[in-house]
Amino acid sequence: MAGNSKRPVNVAILGATGRVGQELLKVLAERKFPVGELKLLASARSKDMTIEYCGKQYPVQEPSAEAFKGVDIVLASAGEAQSKEFAPLAVQAGAVVIDNTNAYRMDPDVPLVVPEVNGDAIKKHKGIIANPNCSTAQLVPVLKVLHELGGLKRVIVSTYQSVSGAGKEAMDELEQQTRAVLNDQDYDAQIFQKQIAFNLIPHIDKFLDNGYTKEEMKVVLESQKILDLPNLPVTCTAVRVPVVISHSEAVTVDLERAVSPAQAREALANSPIIEVWDNPEKNVYPTPLEAAGQDPVYVGRIRRDTSSENGLNLWVVADNLRIGAALNAVRIAEYLVEHKLLKQPVAS
Amino acid sequence: MAGNSKRPVNVAILGATGRVGQELLKVLAERKFPVGELKLLASARSKDMTIEYCGKQYPVQEPSAEAFKGVDIVLASAGEAQSKEFAPLAVQAGAVVIDNTNAYRMDPDVPLVVPEVNGDAIKKHKGIIANPNCSTAQLVPVLKVLHELGGLKRVIVSTYQSVSGAGKEAMDELEQQTRAVLNDQDYDAQIFQKQIAFNLIPHIDKFLDNGYTKEEMKVVLESQKILDLPNLPVTCTAVRVPVVISHSEAVTVDLERAVSPAQAREALANSPIIEVWDNPEKNVYPTPLEAAGQDPVYVGRIRRDTSSENGLNLWVVADNLRIGAALNAVRIAEYLVEHKLLKQPVAS
Repeated sequence: MAGNSKRPVNVAILGATGRVGQELLKVLAERKFPVGELKLLASARSKDMTIEYCGKQYPVQEPSAEAFKGVDIVLASAGEAQSKEFAPLAVQAGAVVIDNTNAYRMDPDVPLVVPEVNGDAIKKHKGIIANPNCSTAQLVPVLKVLHELGGLKRVIVSTYQSVSGAGKEAMDELEQQTRAVLNDQDYDAQIFQKQIAFNLIPHIDKFLDNGYTKEEMKVVLESQKILDLPNLPVTCTAVRVPVVISHSEAVTVDLERAVSPAQAREALANSPIIEVWDNPEKNVYPTPLEAAGQDPVYVGRIRRDTSSENGLNLWVVADNLRIGAALNAVRIAEYLVEHKLLKQPVAS
Repeated sequence: MAGNSKRPVNVAILGATGRVGQELLKVLAERKFPVGELKLLASARSKDMTIEYCGKQYPVQEPSAEAFKGVDIVLASAGEAQSKEFAPLAVQAGAVVIDNTNAYRMDPDVPLVVPEVNGDAIKKHKGIIANPNCSTAQLVPVLKVLHELGGLKRVIVSTYQSVSGAGKEAMDELEQQTRAVLNDQDYDAQIFQKQIAFNLIPHIDKFLDNGYTKEEMKVVLESQKILDLPNLPVTCTAVRVPVVISHSEAVTVDLERAVSPAQAREALANSPIIEVWDNPEKNVYPTPLEAAGQDPVYVGRIRRDTSSENGLNLWVVADNLRIGAALNAVRIAEYLVEHKLLKQPVAS
């Protein structure tokens, strides 16, 4: 299989100028991913831009069927509409698309993957592999360990999500609005529905008929799909908080069997992508600021649930731009290369 | 009963210079509480200060057995140690103490009261009545309504608590630290364990042996006591967020009987102290900024729990300085006056 020799891998990034696109470039470089040709794709708005990668400047191009020729892997994070438009063209051109958007996550023909949780699912791909929503991506590695340990019966999640989940402009809005509030000035909010500076917004993505937001139902449905537990009872309340980077989650799990906090700590610490920070006596527990820029999913505040027989409460924190997006996507790409799962792209 | 005639009520505020002390004065004035003599008590640090109330300046005095003579009601919010020292002296002097601290809340001889939930308990007071912790005070009116409607089986709470719950200095720290972060300057934190600006701290009050914080166990134990459901399963994760005023809570309840979101909305809206803000289609849901300075407990995001048969999820927001402290205390005082439950203080 020509696409799986040791030759460099030709990569295209769709949405290269966005916050996740930038993080993708950072993670590819950090992890020394064997990038061959690199194509940086973004909307016409960004043309004439160039972006540096590993010391070299790359022009930003508009995506097109032509642009995907010769590309092995497309890392897509330009938005749902763009993925729907361009992923099929990329697949036609012989690329494998790792899609960061919501476009294909619940498609039964598309594996939805956190490699450490359900990497095997990648082998069944038909050209597109979906990266889960950020709040799901950091949750499922923890749930997987607890399921193996005690059997999951029910999962209740409250999220505390940073503004970077809503993109670059949202990060700017938090900063500028905070300055305005501190200086008693007006600020015309563009991104968030209500003031986010020194406030909370229990509303991420649009509302659905059942009263949940789409973000909340992503946590429910994507967790069930990734864990391959389609009937697992899961509920979620998703809240935007005035934090720049990293999502935090207060997680309550009901288990089939009794699991002590010590057993949970030990099992979680054995995961290659989880770090347990849990020593209340010494004020050791993760916070979003400490998780920002880091790879692990951090877990702390592990304790027996006072409201159920075999329950645990946990506090899960991770960088939403990394494990929640770019890092997970690159790990999927690494899995494709390692397991020789790339296709032979149409020559450019 | 001389103490219950229409004569004005002599009031002392213990901790008059603190954030809750200030709010107490505001609420007493707003509600036209029939204040007769007013004594403002605070530690020696604050002596020589005067504080205005209804256009008149009052000197700040140090608390002492002598100072409580002639006082009908002491509103205490100076801290647990001060309440333990001075509440018994005030009771000896014939005053009724409404205590805002944790000193007596779980004492079986002390009623722990939110008047709209368990006002009757006030009648059994022996001189001290406890005001619940802020995060409990806004939760129990909602739980009471849901219990009457569907029978509570289990309650799971994640809090999003503002810095004003930690006092005036904490509010200053959030503001100054935020300025420092925005200007890339160092800031030496005094109040919080970790940076609170653009961050979250899953640690309020001290850690207990079971891995919970005292704040979390207050929600568990005080809710059980106020609702008179000592075996109700309750759990809580309490998190400090960079918000100035108002606590928010993501609440999941399991009920004995099916209750639709519409039924819950109707019943909650009938409570005199709850306002339902719940119209997702029009982005109507409460946020802490909107609740700040207001009296009601706001409830929104009411929906069927996707993880249980008869469960609901709700979002509960209230001003922690008012319903969570000063307003509830003054409502207890009003109940005492209305039901002629004051004692005859020792003459001053």
